[in-house]
Amino acid sequence: MGLVVQKYGGSSVSDAESIRRVARRIVDTAQAGNQVVVIVSAMGDTTDDLLDLAEQVSPKPAARELDMLLTAGERISMALLAMAISDLGADARSYTGSQAGLITDAAHGKARIIDVTPGRIQAALDENAIPIVAGFQGVAQDTKDITTLGRGGSDTTAVALAAALNADVCEIYTDVDGVFSADPRFVPLARQQQVLTYEEMLELAASGAKVLHLRCVEYARRFDLPIHVRSSFSTKPGTWVVGDASNLPPIAAAALADVNGETPVEQPIIAGVAHDMGDAKITVIGVPDRPGEAAAIFQAVADAEVNIDMIVQNVSAATTGRTDVTFTCPKASLATALAALQAKQDAVGFESLESDEGIAKISLIGAGMRSHPGVSATFFRAIADAGVNVEMISTSEIRISIVTRADDAQKAAQAVHHAFGLDADGEAVVYGGTGR
Amino acid sequence: MGLVVQKYGGSSVSDAESIRRVARRIVDTAQAGNQVVVIVSAMGDTTDDLLDLAEQVSPKPAARELDMLLTAGERISMALLAMAISDLGADARSYTGSQAGLITDAAHGKARIIDVTPGRIQAALDENAIPIVAGFQGVAQDTKDITTLGRGGSDTTAVALAAALNADVCEIYTDVDGVFSADPRFVPLARQQQVLTYEEMLELAASGAKVLHLRCVEYARRFDLPIHVRSSFSTKPGTWVVGDASNLPPIAAAALADVNGETPVEQPIIAGVAHDMGDAKITVIGVPDRPGEAAAIFQAVADAEVNIDMIVQNVSAATTGRTDVTFTCPKASLATALAALQAKQDAVGFESLESDEGIAKISLIGAGMRSHPGVSATFFRAIADAGVNVEMISTSEIRISIVTRADDAQKAAQAVHHAFGLDADGEAVVYGGTGR
Repeated sequence: MGLVVQKYGGSSVSDAESIRRVARRIVDTAQAGNQVVVIVSAMGDTTDDLLDLAEQVSPKPAARELDMLLTAGERISMALLAMAISDLGADARSYTGSQAGLITDAAHGKARIIDVTPGRIQAALDENAIPIVAGFQGVAQDTKDITTLGRGGSDTTAVALAAALNADVCEIYTDVDGVFSADPRFVPLARQQQVLTYEEMLELAASGAKVLHLRCVEYARRFDLPIHVRSSFSTKPGTWVVGDASNLPPIAAAALADVNGETPVEQPIIAGVAHDMGDAKITVIGVPDRPGEAAAIFQAVADAEVNIDMIVQNVSAATTGRTDVTFTCPKASLATALAALQAKQDAVGFESLESDEGIAKISLIGAGMRSHPGVSATFFRAIADAGVNVEMISTSEIRISIVTRADDAQKAAQAVHHAFGLDADGEAVVYGGTGR
Repeated sequence: MGLVVQKYGGSSVSDAESIRRVARRIVDTAQAGNQVVVIVSAMGDTTDDLLDLAEQVSPKPAARELDMLLTAGERISMALLAMAISDLGADARSYTGSQAGLITDAAHGKARIIDVTPGRIQAALDENAIPIVAGFQGVAQDTKDITTLGRGGSDTTAVALAAALNADVCEIYTDVDGVFSADPRFVPLARQQQVLTYEEMLELAASGAKVLHLRCVEYARRFDLPIHVRSSFSTKPGTWVVGDASNLPPIAAAALADVNGETPVEQPIIAGVAHDMGDAKITVIGVPDRPGEAAAIFQAVADAEVNIDMIVQNVSAATTGRTDVTFTCPKASLATALAALQAKQDAVGFESLESDEGIAKISLIGAGMRSHPGVSATFFRAIADAGVNVEMISTSEIRISIVTRADDAQKAAQAVHHAFGLDADGEAVVYGGTGR
């Protein structure tokens, strides 16, 4: 049938019982005639527990050693999962990231995969074994030290290994049924999407959707690898993330035909509504309206390693020759950014700084925006009718984002969701727990 | 001023505080001008906790996966220890057994070291770093799978690595001050020995002393590597284990001169009194007194993978042409051994089986026995004066062992200890906890 890569997050392997349940699912996939490679995260709270230990020992743990410590987590879950699969009569063998050939740079805690050499995994497959691979970890090419990939790392491991093995699909198992048109906890009438494109998924992830991490989707797009996001708590089909929704890869077309019967796959104009409550807003007031002033401001912030998201520059007041520059950055970086700017006040010559943590970002994403010119009008009409004030606007080819008051965010998201006909017939089922 | 290998057991790194204490000790050793390589076991109860997890997942965990699971334990302790050392300003780097070049056979759970290729450890030393190496684990030469060395494995890692690096000494840190003339919990007047030979230490370990494991001492003897057994809870000198107590290696001679001043090192005739409560006794009654019958009995027991310790065959009763054969084996193997023999009753033609779990073995060990002919007489006189009945006797060149009633064991051990003038002036200090 095919080569299926399955990734299970920490909430799917949180205890002995769920490990046995996942083992059953893996063996079922193999017995249906597939070759299966499994990527697994650390059990439930293991990573947090290990971080606690590190904190008890050291105020600022050495990065190389923190990676060595944290990789113990997947070592435990993968060995237990392999044991459970062996008990079901299949030949399962666990492999660390290093053993599986996940070669990275040496940036401990946020390493990037630079090569995948899955010789041992391919050999195990050739012997009809089921390889169980530790997510989130690799080995540095130059130093041979153990590395971790940072947030969303296990998803990235899965997609990278799937691409290297030329797999037919990478299944990402999580605690929700798939990718929804909005976060069901925020917009209860959110509905599950059957198909999204890589670029839509990238914009959703960048705009605050938590299901898949940016790097994993980038990797899948680069290798045109179909991702199937689905729940490990049910057997329902999830959401396919592909290159072109109107020209599906065979495995996705077959799976969706099973669900939809004669009806062709629904190709949505709008992929979804995302929200992000994690940003703060900084306004630099009275910036001299000369070339290079904005550059000086953003250089100061960049030097402090703060990521900037949206930027707005107000029209210069002709009488004063001064202007205001507003941008957003993560709330966690707010103090750092303000301090960096303060230090440059004399050099730049701005008048004052204002900051605001009471904001939210609402984004509408959909590849269909390209061919449907009325999308912006409908979007802003819905926001206006909901009585929500827009503070900042930014757009890409397939996205519109606005900043509003945090208190208005849910109202705005629901209004937009409704205006584009995304509302489901009933409320989405939300499972407990969170993935990693 | 040399290359010192230090091994810390699980009780020495049981929590954040003790990890920081051990880190301080390591840095002190380095700052005294030594190169230091550290071997560390898993923290406190980690191994037991991981075994519990395995048991919850699988009734009979796959051996390869159990090794993968258990090696997570040292990964955690070594990373934390490296962090704590880094905080003290030294450059510490942790290495798995595989990274440190501990090459083993593929016997999961009881692998034997077949080669040590410590290139990365040597490179770290050359860069003035302190390598922290996971004890108890290695990598199989043929399969490249992760292995564990079984009981006492971390001590063996330490000695093997020390030998490969041509270290001056291997320090084994534990929760007692050194090797005593008897277990202080059993014989309160036991005294610490300053020097023992490898062969004495081997006989002690084989006779039930728990301080050092047999394989580690065998390894040290093969490479003539001095071992210094000492407490991680004090800075007192411990016990040196060397090839020839009358011709000490320079590092041991210097250390002991510091302690003893002008007095020459005391070379004891008797190394110690060991006891072992873990064996049971089986008597095979009415064995036909023909060649090959004893062989058939022991073959049956060996086929059941039961280790036999002492063996006694009674004189044949001339009238019956039959004899009794008695041997001891671990209590844990008693049922297996009895079943194996029962199955052979008709083939061997013995009359019946008796077993007895109420026994103990008391052993007197000392290289001085060779040159002091009165040792046996003094030993049996002390046992007799204590009113203890001897059920079995076995001897080697430097050891006398007897089997007695378990209830008499402590009385016998104390009597022998006293008879050979081993009693200390006061009771030994016994710390809590146990090492691994």
